[in-house]
Parts: sequence; structure tokens; C-alpha cells
Amino acid sequence: MNSISRPGLPAAALPLAQQMADEARTIIKRYFRTRPVVDAKGDDSPVTIADREVERMMRQRIEEAFSEHGIKGEEFAHRNPEADWCWHLDPIDGTKSFLSGSLCFGTQIALSYRGDPVLGLIDQPITGERWLASPSRTSELNDQPIRTSRCTELAEAVLYTSDLACFQQGQLGHFKRLQQAVSLTRYSHDCYAAGLLALGQIDLLVEANVYPYDIAAQIPVIEGAGGIVTDWQGNPLCLEGRVCVLASANTELHAKALATLNETGRS
Amino acid sequence: MNSISRPGLPAAALPLAQQMADEARTIIKRYFRTRPVVDAKGDDSPVTIADREVERMMRQRIEEAFSEHGIKGEEFAHRNPEADWCWHLDPIDGTKSFLSGSLCFGTQIALSYRGDPVLGLIDQPITGERWLASPSRTSELNDQPIRTSRCTELAEAVLYTSDLACFQQGQLGHFKRLQQAVSLTRYSHDCYAAGLLALGQIDLLVEANVYPYDIAAQIPVIEGAGGIVTDWQGNPLCLEGRVCVLASANTELHAKALATLNETGRS
Repeated sequence: MNSISRPGLPAAALPLAQQMADEARTIIKRYFRTRPVVDAKGDDSPVTIADREVERMMRQRIEEAFSEHGIKGEEFAHRNPEADWCWHLDPIDGTKSFLSGSLCFGTQIALSYRGDPVLGLIDQPITGERWLASPSRTSELNDQPIRTSRCTELAEAVLYTSDLACFQQGQLGHFKRLQQAVSLTRYSHDCYAAGLLALGQIDLLVEANVYPYDIAAQIPVIEGAGGIVTDWQGNPLCLEGRVCVLASANTELHAKALATLNETGRS
Repeated sequence: MNSISRPGLPAAALPLAQQMADEARTIIKRYFRTRPVVDAKGDDSPVTIADREVERMMRQRIEEAFSEHGIKGEEFAHRNPEADWCWHLDPIDGTKSFLSGSLCFGTQIALSYRGDPVLGLIDQPITGERWLASPSRTSELNDQPIRTSRCTELAEAVLYTSDLACFQQGQLGHFKRLQQAVSLTRYSHDCYAAGLLALGQIDLLVEANVYPYDIAAQIPVIEGAGGIVTDWQGNPLCLEGRVCVLASANTELHAKALATLNETGRS
């Protein structure tokens, strides 16, 4: 993040993000484990009533406080997409977990400046865990500073990924090379895995073909705790289109994971 | 369960299971998210200090209360394995989740009579969720009666499985046929998935080559909520050696899942 050329975070942005996450909790708790009516979008991802109700609430709060800001969310059309400051909203990340009563889901809120996410919030509404990152502060879980792990060996690293069904055939081979090099792999945790990475409990997170709103809040949370987030080639993530994500606890581990992910030869 | 030929549950068994789960919570909370020292067993499954400390405590409590009962646990040698009444102890089911800070783990305690598990307890120590089943009562989550789902169509069913790495090559093909027939699949939840099945949030649970202590507590919890648990051929589970498990929300769905799992032909 290039903080020199960036104006300061609007003072009301952080309290607004917190307030939206608080209100989202109330809505989400009403629908959790009720097996709510499920709608199917074009891409077959399940969408719940809660999803839309939360995003509608968040859009209203942002429009009231920052009418000039952009808004990009999962459920509705972009608003002011060319604005310098843009909010990225993922009311329920991990919809499949939410629908099946698992706790591996969360609300994600990010604020970016010219495409660079600077404020990130990940909230688990049921357990009450809230990860928060803002400029010039270490990332926090429920107001306690957190740090990523010091693991620098792939052989000792814990790897999470959410859904292999999102990987394309060629990508799967690359992922499997990395998987063979690490100590263990777990699945299906969505944004909760990003929280575990920021917390130093896991060491690597790989996702393929996710949307910007899936990842925007995770970048400041992970990087503000000492980690690093890039695409599979080691480039900064671009919050446009689908993205492939490699997030690591530290730069040394990241370099090794990148090299393994990009090894050529038979998988 | 053939309750006619079975003597009543010893009166002290249920309070003892609750007390052991309470004590286990205290121990487990002390180690959760500390990335404790990890030991490696012959089969490479991670074993934590907490795992052994909890099982040691539980064995002591059982020996004090029921010196004639059998004990089969994950960490130590069998005690009185030929006894009519036998306790099955899994101090931390979902060790990989526990080690990486995820909540998808739990303590499992079961009591069987001549191989038939009649008391089952699944406890999530961090969220405070406790599933409990005992003869002649509907299964409960934190003292509230629970029921499995009424889903009878594979196309609408939610399927969980813990770890495809535990499947043998031939088993994987059978599993994939079932996976292709259901609405969605999620992974890595271990005993928490059994809780979600009993709670009516998911509809199918498939596991391959698990140990009796992995599954013993889940049988009464799922069946006491209206579900059904068998092996992949539809036979009652035998609590000896490794077992392959199919658990369903109801008998109609179970029959369809069994048929799909056992379809022959190219996968």
C-alpha cells in the first residue's frame, strides 16, 4: 500500500463499518439455521434472503454517510464504480456454510482508495469474532492485535482453500503440487480461513477465480497482521474480474509457495 | 437398537458423560489457538497434548465410577474390551481443525452395550454447543430437542464429508457419484457435521475408513433425532476396525443415497 499518495481514511469510515457489521449480525442471526428459502443465481451459487437484506441495509448506510463513494456488492448493481473511494460488500461470504448451519461464514466489508483496499472488516456474527484492519494499525481480532505465523517451511505449513470445484482443470494441478508440499490441507472455511491466517493459526490460503468482494476485506486484515496477499504470479491483486489468490503468513513462506505453485512438469 | 433385550442405562452414566465433557472443555480451552506442540503418530494424524490430557481425565473418571466397564479411546490401550458396557472416547475429533484454530472439532463420548451405542455426546468446547442422545429421548442440542430434515430428494440434499484423503481410490468413485447427485458438498467438519445432520441443517454425511471412536457417539445422536446411520452397504455399523459410514436425515433419502453410492459403471 502506497500510503504517501493516499489521503487519510475518512474519519467516519471505521465507525460506519463497525455499525454496519453490528446491524448485519442482528439480521443474520434471525436467519441462521432456519434453512431459509434459497434462490439460485445464474452461476448456481445459493443466495439467501439474509444476503440481500444485509446488503440493502449496508448500501443505505453508506449512501447516507458518503453519497459520493462507490459501492460494489455481491447482490446489486455497482454504484459510482469510478469513484476514488469504493466500498466492497460481501454480506455473507460462505453462503454454502451459512445455508447448512456451519459457522464457516462471515460478513465482509472493505473500503478501497483507487483500487487499493485500506480498511477491512471480517465478522462472524454467531461467534462474535470480528477481524478489523485499518491504515497504520496492526490488524485486530475483537480489539486485540494479531500477528501471522512465523512458519517459513512448506513442510510445516497449514494450507486452507475453500472449494476445489471453483478451480479450473489446469489450476488444480498447480494447487496439488502445493498441497503435496505442505503438512495439511483443510477446506470449506471461506473468509474464516483468512481470519485464521491473520491470527497465526494457519500459514497459507489459496483461492481460485473468486470475485473482488470475496477478497477485498481480507487483504488489509492479512497484510495488517504481517502477511502477504498476491495473485498466483506474485502480483498485487487487481480488484476487477475474477482473481486467483495466494495469501501467506510471511514473505519467505510466500516465495516458496509461489515457486511450488508455479513449478512446471508433470503434477 | 434392540431396547427389549438391553438392560437400562446405568443411572450415573449420563451425568458422568456430562461431567467429563465439562472438564474436557476446561482443558481444551487452555490449548485452543495456542498452536501447541504437535506429535506425529504412525499414521501421521496430529496428536495434541490436549488430546491425551482429556482422555487421561476421562479414563480416570470412568474407572472411578464404573470399574467393570470397558474403555476404548483414541490415545491409549483398550481397557476391559470384552465388557458388556463399553465407553468410546474421542477427546478431540477434528484434530486438524483444532490445530489450525477452526471450530470444526469436538469431544465425543459414547457408551455402548454389547457393541450397540446407546448414549452419545458431541461437545464443541468453544461455542458451547453440546449434542446429547440417550435411550428413549429425542436427541438434544443444549437441552432443546432436535430433528433431522425431511429432505427426501438427492438433488436438494446437502452432503458433508470430512476428508477425501481418507478415501481409497475405488471408494472415491462411489463417493463422486453421490456428490454429483446432491445440491452441494462441504468438507472438513468432522463430528460437527454429525451435529448439523442431527439438527436438520444438512441431509447426508459420508465418511470412509474411520475408527469406531470417530463415529460411536454420532450414531445415537443422529438416530435419536430421526436419522439413520449404516455402512455403505446399508448394514448396521460394527464398532470394530475401520468403518465406512453413510448417515442420512431419513430412511427415504438413505435408500436413494445407498443406491447412488453403489451404482456400478463408469464414474
